[in-house]
Amino acid sequence: MRPRRPKLRDEVITLAHGAGGKATRALVEGLFLEELDNPLLAPLSDSALLELNGSRFAFTTDAYVVKPIFFPGGDIGDLAVNGTVNDLAMSGARPLYLSTGFILEEGTPLADINRIATAMGRAAAAAGVRLVTGDTKVVDAGHGDGVFINTAGIGVIADGVDIRPGRAAVGDVVIISGEIGLHGVAIMSCREGLEFGTTIETDSAPLNGLVQAMIATGADLHTLRDPTRGGLSASLNEIARAAGVGIDLVERDLPIPEVVGNACSLLGLDPLQVANEGKLIAFVPERDADTVLAAMQVHEYGKEAVAIGRCGSDHPGMVVARTALGGNRVVDMPIGEQLPRIC
Amino acid sequence: MRPRRPKLRDEVITLAHGAGGKATRALVEGLFLEELDNPLLAPLSDSALLELNGSRFAFTTDAYVVKPIFFPGGDIGDLAVNGTVNDLAMSGARPLYLSTGFILEEGTPLADINRIATAMGRAAAAAGVRLVTGDTKVVDAGHGDGVFINTAGIGVIADGVDIRPGRAAVGDVVIISGEIGLHGVAIMSCREGLEFGTTIETDSAPLNGLVQAMIATGADLHTLRDPTRGGLSASLNEIARAAGVGIDLVERDLPIPEVVGNACSLLGLDPLQVANEGKLIAFVPERDADTVLAAMQVHEYGKEAVAIGRCGSDHPGMVVARTALGGNRVVDMPIGEQLPRIC
Repeated sequence: MRPRRPKLRDEVITLAHGAGGKATRALVEGLFLEELDNPLLAPLSDSALLELNGSRFAFTTDAYVVKPIFFPGGDIGDLAVNGTVNDLAMSGARPLYLSTGFILEEGTPLADINRIATAMGRAAAAAGVRLVTGDTKVVDAGHGDGVFINTAGIGVIADGVDIRPGRAAVGDVVIISGEIGLHGVAIMSCREGLEFGTTIETDSAPLNGLVQAMIATGADLHTLRDPTRGGLSASLNEIARAAGVGIDLVERDLPIPEVVGNACSLLGLDPLQVANEGKLIAFVPERDADTVLAAMQVHEYGKEAVAIGRCGSDHPGMVVARTALGGNRVVDMPIGEQLPRIC
Repeated sequence: MRPRRPKLRDEVITLAHGAGGKATRALVEGLFLEELDNPLLAPLSDSALLELNGSRFAFTTDAYVVKPIFFPGGDIGDLAVNGTVNDLAMSGARPLYLSTGFILEEGTPLADINRIATAMGRAAAAAGVRLVTGDTKVVDAGHGDGVFINTAGIGVIADGVDIRPGRAAVGDVVIISGEIGLHGVAIMSCREGLEFGTTIETDSAPLNGLVQAMIATGADLHTLRDPTRGGLSASLNEIARAAGVGIDLVERDLPIPEVVGNACSLLGLDPLQVANEGKLIAFVPERDADTVLAAMQVHEYGKEAVAIGRCGSDHPGMVVARTALGGNRVVDMPIGEQLPRIC
């Protein structure tokens, strides 16, 4: 099935274009892919897969504009390191080197920059990657927002590893590595000054170690994805389209913490559309599912890993959830600006 | 000689921290290098030099915040491609792959983004590199400035090539590939609405082809640098310090176009501190200088290449210019915000 290319009808940039859903896809496909016409860009994976002097590499980049820059459990600095580490890990690469580009607003306290740089150094050490090159620009007050960070990263892919969205196949078990919705709810409750009895912390974490443990089982991992912007809904829909498979979720199996459920009810959010920064979804053949789950559950960042669904052939390109009442509902790609500036 | 580390005394970010001179160095050395303590970062070269599976690579990143985003002869898009291509080329690498991260402000016309994406595609094709991965974020109106772009790049370094600031040596001839000051004056005159009889265009250009032609001569190229932010002054001072050599310039040999000289007089700028985006300086042993100059002069981007000085042992770490009147003046590192948001 060839997915329809969404139309780009807007005349100006809106927050929806940055939300990771349909509008982002329309912008990227309708504009960048047209203009930068390039077969390597086309797969729209988290990383580009490159061959250099006989070795295979993953190369990726992300801009971080999260607001506020400090939030419970983390800040823009460790988010920028973990996010790029995770994008590399999702293609099965072992992340090695990161670059960092800072866009600082005039008037930002140096103490803030210091705290962020410290967090980045610590996050890089924890993930086992090195920050090797950087750049700093300053924009006049009122034309930035404290700190924006761009990180790019390079990782090396071992022989035999072939993990990408297009490999998800009918019969695959869909696994999530842990509870969903924590990062988005942490940012939103912090931004809105809400309390939910307990402080909700971001789940931001480096997932490269978990992925290496999964690869080490010898299982044929088909697809990995970290469901960040747009949450589980966006990631699963992208994979369903890329692979031309249908995805069937079992709603009651989704690990949604009570506090996330409550916060989402209050804020009018769908937990499946809320960003995660330390979770991954894996598509693995049924024969390998138990082995992979077991390997995940003994890892620090996969303790709560569970199967949440399967790939089928019934509704290719679509994600459907069986509800608690036994009905089915379509889990659609988020349309727009549910949570602007979440990462 | 071990250069003194500049003190970081400020409490907030100022435009000077982004200007590429002393304040930028104080910020980077006093803060990022402290916190991100990493031997690969320490050389402060334009690119990090990495070894991966037996091959040598250069990896670099730059953020682009130039204002305005469209200017005579170019825009933020081709600048972002050429700038990163050139940073890679300055370590002798052959640039291969680029990533692009966009931070777009809500309300920016899509027509602008389209024009920029087109320019990036064209610039990448001209430079022979591929844009392989990207990311787009949107910030709310009033918290960005139209378009910011971050590009990172990977290039491969051929065996035997060893080009870096620390290799500049006493006796080296200092060559510049052409006229200086054009990019900075183009931006400033555009920003200030000034006319100088003729439209001054940016010199933004990809220099990787020129560098490959220079390498192909077989000459032992010691050091290359593209004098962007902070101009010739910042680049030469950085090299003098990195290599522990003195640099003696001959002022009358500096190729300063009349229109740049006039504009600088009017705007109160020093042409040696004005940014270039399509020029390089080369440090080559005297025996190779004529060969390298000849190879440059037959290349599209090196037609006006000339020798402008030499490395000596008299005043290590300093740059001195012999004036038209026969005196000597110190060419110091720019202090701060002469030209904010020039690239």
